[in-house]
Amino acid sequence: MVPITDPRINNYLMKLSSEDDRLILGMEREAKKRDFPIVDRLVGRLLYTLTKLKNPRLIVELGSGYGYSAYWFAKALGRGRVVLIDYDEKNSKKAQKVFQEADLKRKAEFRVGNALDLAQEYRNIDILFIDIDKHQYTSAVKSLLPNLNRNALVIADNALWYGKVTGKSRDRETLGIKEFNDYMFRHKEFYTTIMPLRDGVLIAYKIT
Amino acid sequence: MVPITDPRINNYLMKLSSEDDRLILGMEREAKKRDFPIVDRLVGRLLYTLTKLKNPRLIVELGSGYGYSAYWFAKALGRGRVVLIDYDEKNSKKAQKVFQEADLKRKAEFRVGNALDLAQEYRNIDILFIDIDKHQYTSAVKSLLPNLNRNALVIADNALWYGKVTGKSRDRETLGIKEFNDYMFRHKEFYTTIMPLRDGVLIAYKIT
Repeated sequence: MVPITDPRINNYLMKLSSEDDRLILGMEREAKKRDFPIVDRLVGRLLYTLTKLKNPRLIVELGSGYGYSAYWFAKALGRGRVVLIDYDEKNSKKAQKVFQEADLKRKAEFRVGNALDLAQEYRNIDILFIDIDKHQYTSAVKSLLPNLNRNALVIADNALWYGKVTGKSRDRETLGIKEFNDYMFRHKEFYTTIMPLRDGVLIAYKIT
Repeated sequence: MVPITDPRINNYLMKLSSEDDRLILGMEREAKKRDFPIVDRLVGRLLYTLTKLKNPRLIVELGSGYGYSAYWFAKALGRGRVVLIDYDEKNSKKAQKVFQEADLKRKAEFRVGNALDLAQEYRNIDILFIDIDKHQYTSAVKSLLPNLNRNALVIADNALWYGKVTGKSRDRETLGIKEFNDYMFRHKEFYTTIMPLRDGVLIAYKIT
């Protein structure tokens, strides 16, 4: 493992990013307690900013967990909606509870099952957020390319995979992420960059 | 000094971000040779992405150097234009030469003098890019707030100032950047985040 951003930098950024939304604070506490992977507050703020800039009608999330990232998307949404897809019914129920409490349920749709299959039902996706098993990233974007709107954004979490992308690891996850990054940076229809925030956030702007 | 992003991560991102624009490559070579501070290619790609998302009419740069960042803005621009302001006539001439060669001059305006004074001439700024003396950042954004368009972006380079923002340095530059970050994160009209790319890039979305 390679540290991505120096912990002192991370602490400084976290201190600047104070938060008073008790639902966000609650989800963060739960993530810590259960060691459940969430994107974290700094990435959440990036998702919020990108959503404000993009003003999307439709966001589709592959791998929503209990709704932490979707919550940031939903808070930034104008008239659009976010589709949360997760394979785990329990996660989905938790997400629904949080969205209910925040009065954001009207902006969201909750689906349980295989993310790649269910996402196929949606057309004109403005933001596709990918946070499923790492070896599935490339096939996810390949199979959903026709479903993306003009100038869509593809955002993928864990694009630096604990820094293991810089080394010689041959495990399925590391290889999957490396393949995905290569694919996105070389793809003629995408303009791609990675933010070294937390575990790396890939942002690809569809130029067609 | 605190390292911001691990150099192995930086190398990995640079390898992904191959470039064949000979004018960009030329400016990067010159920066290396003269030890001239430019934002670097990874930040350039972020500026390009943000410009595509924002589709601005007017970008104003405070502290353009010889035009490296402005070149990324200009390449991403639709019908808008970018105003390059620098106090050094030689820098401006170099920037003009590059923009001429790239056939981007019609998208640019070149001004020489005090950035804070000259920028006051512009109204409805969609993207304000700040890269001047670090103790001037806060006064720059304060004085130009009325000149910003609804939902404008403020982007500032060196927001982590060699990582010195995390320590106890009391020099004018470090204090200036810390004051600026505090100001932007607390400001009710901005939604602010910092990307730990190179020396830190602050992105503030004007929510009014």
